[in-house]
Amino acid sequence: MRLIVIGGDAAGMSAAAQARRGRGPDELEIHAFELGRFVSYSACGIPYWIGGVVDGRDRLIARTPAEFRKAGIEVHTRHEVTGIDLDARTVTVRDLDAGSTRREGFDELVYATGATPVRPPWADITGKGVFGVQTLEDGDALREWLATEKPETAVVIGAGYIGVEIAEALIKRGLRVTLVERAQQPMGTIDDDMGALLATTIRDLGIDLRTGVTVQGLETANGKIRAVATDAGPLPAGVVVIGLGVRPNTALAEAAGLPLGATGGLRTDQRQQVAGGVWAAGDCTEVHHRVSGGQVHVPLGTHANKQGRVAGINIGGGHATFPGVIGTAVTKLCDLEVARTGLSSAEAARARFETVTATIESTNRAGYFPGAVPMTVKVIAERETGMLLGAQIVGRTEAAKRIDAFAVAIWNRMTVGEMTGLDLGYAPPYAPVWDPILVAARKAEQELDRHRP
Amino acid sequence: MRLIVIGGDAAGMSAAAQARRGRGPDELEIHAFELGRFVSYSACGIPYWIGGVVDGRDRLIARTPAEFRKAGIEVHTRHEVTGIDLDARTVTVRDLDAGSTRREGFDELVYATGATPVRPPWADITGKGVFGVQTLEDGDALREWLATEKPETAVVIGAGYIGVEIAEALIKRGLRVTLVERAQQPMGTIDDDMGALLATTIRDLGIDLRTGVTVQGLETANGKIRAVATDAGPLPAGVVVIGLGVRPNTALAEAAGLPLGATGGLRTDQRQQVAGGVWAAGDCTEVHHRVSGGQVHVPLGTHANKQGRVAGINIGGGHATFPGVIGTAVTKLCDLEVARTGLSSAEAARARFETVTATIESTNRAGYFPGAVPMTVKVIAERETGMLLGAQIVGRTEAAKRIDAFAVAIWNRMTVGEMTGLDLGYAPPYAPVWDPILVAARKAEQELDRHRP
Repeated sequence: MRLIVIGGDAAGMSAAAQARRGRGPDELEIHAFELGRFVSYSACGIPYWIGGVVDGRDRLIARTPAEFRKAGIEVHTRHEVTGIDLDARTVTVRDLDAGSTRREGFDELVYATGATPVRPPWADITGKGVFGVQTLEDGDALREWLATEKPETAVVIGAGYIGVEIAEALIKRGLRVTLVERAQQPMGTIDDDMGALLATTIRDLGIDLRTGVTVQGLETANGKIRAVATDAGPLPAGVVVIGLGVRPNTALAEAAGLPLGATGGLRTDQRQQVAGGVWAAGDCTEVHHRVSGGQVHVPLGTHANKQGRVAGINIGGGHATFPGVIGTAVTKLCDLEVARTGLSSAEAARARFETVTATIESTNRAGYFPGAVPMTVKVIAERETGMLLGAQIVGRTEAAKRIDAFAVAIWNRMTVGEMTGLDLGYAPPYAPVWDPILVAARKAEQELDRHRP
Repeated sequence: MRLIVIGGDAAGMSAAAQARRGRGPDELEIHAFELGRFVSYSACGIPYWIGGVVDGRDRLIARTPAEFRKAGIEVHTRHEVTGIDLDARTVTVRDLDAGSTRREGFDELVYATGATPVRPPWADITGKGVFGVQTLEDGDALREWLATEKPETAVVIGAGYIGVEIAEALIKRGLRVTLVERAQQPMGTIDDDMGALLATTIRDLGIDLRTGVTVQGLETANGKIRAVATDAGPLPAGVVVIGLGVRPNTALAEAAGLPLGATGGLRTDQRQQVAGGVWAAGDCTEVHHRVSGGQVHVPLGTHANKQGRVAGINIGGGHATFPGVIGTAVTKLCDLEVARTGLSSAEAARARFETVTATIESTNRAGYFPGAVPMTVKVIAERETGMLLGAQIVGRTEAAKRIDAFAVAIWNRMTVGEMTGLDLGYAPPYAPVWDPILVAARKAEQELDRHRP
């Protein structure tokens, strides 16, 4: 039997590795084709490598092609799959270095092409100095530009996770950084009141955050970026990084007639199967949101790994399912920690939930313990049932990973009332005697009571 | 109406405060009697005050009698309740400073007398220099002894949470510290293999940990402690701290005919009621263990606060219940973090569960991220159902509070298989792409598979 994997990062290589665990080389031949030069790396680590926090690109690589080969998985880098023929059970592959094209047959296919950065029409310019940070190659190119051109000014477009992380990386490298965001607050995945806390920190870092500003175009001179044109005037830029999010990379799948969902991602069943013997995993797919009940596109390494593993177990003869997501995400901006899970207020409204919210201030440790610093926790609950729908945390330290307790609570459809009784870890170095999570649940319970007839 | 509260720490004062929220001063008169000089303080913070981490006793006090008085709660410190007459609805109170005794009537009574340190017969000596660390007065006395006697050697008896924390505090103050434990490993609330990791750290700190050693007596000279006699020979001691745990303080309740459980703690209903109009909360009670189904005595500030709040809400005319505990606990030994929740292997065996266990090594952050350090996670699952029964964590940083995700999972009776799909927070500064929790759940799932017919 022959397995072909398209895309050699988290999802694809997890699938390959798990399939190999299930079936030995005599039973299953595995070939992975990867467009780039690298496989199995942490794209999430790129901002930290740009900023010099992580020392060297190779640190981001989990497993090399040689290591996969040893495990009986043939990895072909710089190979682009240009077509899939589902009836003939073949893919067309172009060897980018040799310039040759060939066909490869498969019995099982894993589609794991990841996502493509959103690039508005105005980004389509001939001048150099405009970057994304999607692949290690992107990171290489950006670092090279910073080293050789030594720009003094940077404009980062889009204040989502990647935009904020890159803005921090560039200011650490000594650039003057402007962060442009069309919305009124950065990080649209959290509510505006929580985003405002983040905005303060961004500005305290010396980053010139411009919210409510729309980019209109890029200005070049002598083939290099010079400025970003916006509806609030031009912003000088010796380098531009675009962080406007990503879209599922599904062109090949669409051409082959595989089904896409409304989000534009590949629609799989719970076992990550798209069609008989065709599997998909990672940023090119859409996933089930357990709270809203809808399908969403959540490009995150943690889901890609889980989905890839599920696909691989099934290909390997086992049985596994991916249970969906609840939208948990965490990030760090210097010592500021930001976390969210479940639905934001806006998402809850879109999913037609009637909600109450509660926001509290507490501390990471007992108030009297050295290192105790403030933490803000916001909770969103369904008005009628009290069910926890979402939570957000902004704090200075020991804050973000507290979201996991909320995440497990949402996963299990707990009400905020039930949550007030939770037996969470308490000792003065770790929490006040009422953990911020419990304080927030209590406040939400009071809000629910106020809204009862 | 008149409420009398016996005991002015976490449970009693939480009850008083909540009762006051429910009923104003015109409706409810509240009197709290406290044997000691302080109310509403963090007993858990005492080791950190002894060690100089927390600067001053007053930092541990959450609210003073004067503050309670302002809120319409009369607090009487240095008042010992010596008897309860349930039929007459009165208590007998002795004013320790005035030397006078009086009777006080009540309509509602909160019994919140806390716990009493276990003191074996050999601890009953006339010599000075032997301490517990149960109350702020205990802390005062120990600090005074350290300051005036300047002992060079200390023996701490019992290597549970308090013993370990006090041993660290004393070694920080420059004493030579021996920590004596009868069991083979410190911290009997975690499994021996996890305790062994802790033992290494204790010894690395320079604490002379003696496990498997039984104390036989205390030796004094000139009215002062000189040594601790053990079955492994005498240990020189200029100061001794006994940390052998605590027992529910129920003498008064027993004398009044209130029902005790098998653990020796007061047995309450879910609303914290012991008998009509008589409520109990905190370390003097026993609580329902949600995993074993049995009653247990778990003296912890976090439970005392919750139980007191529940009693107070009910007295105040509301309705609240305490849902029981699952045995979550965390502690810190220098930079070593130790956490547990649910049942240990020994507890699971006693509760007649057939189990499988899985232990994994992972890191707190992505392996390539600066500050990534090892973390050991152990998971205990029911063999037949896969239900998570317990979890333990030992790590260097960002480890202990991860127990909360396990705690919420146990609370909701998740299986380890379900847990492998959990959507937990991921970003390189916070976790590997597979959080240690997920890695442990996966390993446990594999163990379950191995044990299936």
